[in-house]
Amino acid sequence: MTMRQDAEQIIRASLQAVQPDAAVQRALEDIRFEAEGRLILVAIGKAAWQMAKAASHKLGGRIHSGIVITKYDHVMGPLPNLLMREAGHPVPDANGFAATEEAIALVQDLTPRDSVLLLISGGGSALFESPLIPGEELQSITDQLLRSGADIVEINTIRKRLSRVKGGRFAQLCAPARVYAVVLSDILGDPLDMIASGPATPDTSTTEDALRVVKKYALYLSPQAEALLQKETPKALANVRALVTGSVRHLCEAAAKAAATLGYHPHILADSLSCQAREAGSFMGSIARRHQSTGSSLAFIVGGETVVKLTGSGKGGRNHELALAAAKGLQGTTNTALFSLGSDGTDGPTDAAGGYVDQDTALQLAGQGVDIDQVLQQNDAYHALERVGGLLMTGPTGTNVNDVSVLLIRRGALESPSIACNM
Amino acid sequence: MTMRQDAEQIIRASLQAVQPDAAVQRALEDIRFEAEGRLILVAIGKAAWQMAKAASHKLGGRIHSGIVITKYDHVMGPLPNLLMREAGHPVPDANGFAATEEAIALVQDLTPRDSVLLLISGGGSALFESPLIPGEELQSITDQLLRSGADIVEINTIRKRLSRVKGGRFAQLCAPARVYAVVLSDILGDPLDMIASGPATPDTSTTEDALRVVKKYALYLSPQAEALLQKETPKALANVRALVTGSVRHLCEAAAKAAATLGYHPHILADSLSCQAREAGSFMGSIARRHQSTGSSLAFIVGGETVVKLTGSGKGGRNHELALAAAKGLQGTTNTALFSLGSDGTDGPTDAAGGYVDQDTALQLAGQGVDIDQVLQQNDAYHALERVGGLLMTGPTGTNVNDVSVLLIRRGALESPSIACNM
Repeated sequence: MTMRQDAEQIIRASLQAVQPDAAVQRALEDIRFEAEGRLILVAIGKAAWQMAKAASHKLGGRIHSGIVITKYDHVMGPLPNLLMREAGHPVPDANGFAATEEAIALVQDLTPRDSVLLLISGGGSALFESPLIPGEELQSITDQLLRSGADIVEINTIRKRLSRVKGGRFAQLCAPARVYAVVLSDILGDPLDMIASGPATPDTSTTEDALRVVKKYALYLSPQAEALLQKETPKALANVRALVTGSVRHLCEAAAKAAATLGYHPHILADSLSCQAREAGSFMGSIARRHQSTGSSLAFIVGGETVVKLTGSGKGGRNHELALAAAKGLQGTTNTALFSLGSDGTDGPTDAAGGYVDQDTALQLAGQGVDIDQVLQQNDAYHALERVGGLLMTGPTGTNVNDVSVLLIRRGALESPSIACNM
Repeated sequence: MTMRQDAEQIIRASLQAVQPDAAVQRALEDIRFEAEGRLILVAIGKAAWQMAKAASHKLGGRIHSGIVITKYDHVMGPLPNLLMREAGHPVPDANGFAATEEAIALVQDLTPRDSVLLLISGGGSALFESPLIPGEELQSITDQLLRSGADIVEINTIRKRLSRVKGGRFAQLCAPARVYAVVLSDILGDPLDMIASGPATPDTSTTEDALRVVKKYALYLSPQAEALLQKETPKALANVRALVTGSVRHLCEAAAKAAATLGYHPHILADSLSCQAREAGSFMGSIARRHQSTGSSLAFIVGGETVVKLTGSGKGGRNHELALAAAKGLQGTTNTALFSLGSDGTDGPTDAAGGYVDQDTALQLAGQGVDIDQVLQQNDAYHALERVGGLLMTGPTGTNVNDVSVLLIRRGALESPSIACNM
């Protein structure tokens, strides 16, 4: 196998592991539902239908009833015993509010023997909402906060208190039933209170925090909203168990496992990378140079969401920039390659998921008169990678758990592709 | 021991290992000189005297004769059997040319049984030179190249051909004697042909390359210089063995060894880091977050020379910026610390060698109203670190082999300093 083939095999395995269905299947292996009680399924977010389908496939008739609340055009067909609802995203609408009311109705009057399987994915903040004040006032308060420059933590501190379901309140409505929250995380570090506004996560902010925000930004509030801000959100939820299942961490771990299968010793260095893309690529190149003469095949893996620094007006995403910057560092080494991939299949405003480079890429580009530093300065990594066959095209992958970059350093004889074909 | 004490112990051990004398002692353990022949010592560069002293201490009466050529005020006393010469740096002068002639005279008429111990350190390009054309013409050609925007490789391609000693020619003059070149490297990647212009390193550039440079920049040359450019430099030197002994690699390895002694599992990730300082710090912070819950104590080590991106007019060097940026990433972890250190003891235009941060640094700064992002934007990391006792002061260290950054992650109970004092 060539290193490009190694890379493609690792990419396939990694993406497979973070598909919503694979993620839900994995999580369900860790859950033992009460044998006799009812099992209610509530799936919210952009991947709600895929997650519900996987649960339905696994649990079958065990599901008593439930609801799927997702974006318009995201329901792919009926699922047994489940209501299918589509609603507005990113701006919440009346369909979302109504569907959330239906979800609340489903978890009324449960007993300690009953269970709620809550499947959460990105987009849940907008799709799963039942405001305690009129929608117009909620919008006005949000606008005031945004205009004043309030940060996301401050905005959430206020909004959780104006919602029937956010900030752990939905789990409270499910009590005394057990709630199993299975979370597909699209935010670095898996902050459960942020993903879908944490419907089953204790809220760390206090009423004092909320009143401080009101004062700081001199918010204009109705007496009803003012009273709601005084009401405390749940600080502990004894009936909840949360499992983060699809996240950049799983993406990295799947890449490590696939690399190990191919004979590389995998090292996951980081899963919350947030530095500049091109600088991360340079760092990875330095790692390659250090390890090029070690005795065994190595795979260094970093996950996260790097940042593109805009200095030009070319085409390319953060994964393209990371890979192209790494190409410089790989030059002069032997049997090294690096790929960087956005798990959703589209890197930046492009049709490619990321980039692949190896020890020859920089020389190939130089031979075509392309200067990597200049390309990076123009933010035009896509076109440079395109010239050397370095674009990774996956199409939309059906998931979104940030990016993974893998540096491969191979030792020992590489089989040539032609020999491999003859075997 | 506290983690700060761990860091300081690692710093002491690392700096010790890359002192010129320690480096030479280590290299000499690998060399077996012919038992009967003469041994000639030639030491050139800014650390020539320290290197010669270590060799003299180890080899004693074995040294038949030799010469030390270093910067003005860098000879610290006589050494047995060695001529002491001081000369101009960075601009070569007549004293340097004369001393180089003396060195050439010392290696005339050697036999295959004789050996030359050539001790090379930074600054050797200027200090060790014997031009084949008048000094004024050499200066004029160099000026023409600099003004035309020629790069360092192009300049060296020309200058090696105009020198009696550069580009492997000094080793050629030593033949048939064996030459042992012990190199204290201050350039990333240890490019032997660049350090002191490679007096004992085969030259990879050709006469064709040289003529291409002449044409490209339309250089004005005397007939004598033109003839010299046609003469090939040595492409192989069978009589030379080169040992790079003090380099950022040794700095990293010494840090790894010292960390291991303290119970950390060391990993040298890179020894040629060249990305932006603050982005490298962010990357190291991500590594800390990934590994904070592993079972054993870890030390991640990177060496190299990062770059400061100037965005403000504050005070600080690249090591200060790297450490301060890492502090953000360490926030929220436990028992983590990072230091970054310039091996010469002065980081950027400051009196501090680098910076030390731990998991509390970011909060401490926030408590004083200091925003790390803003500080980095102002390039003012020195003052921020100063507020929290995060400056590393070593004073001048007597060596210069770039920087090392070490991330420490400690597991198990940390002895409190007071208990340690009572023991």
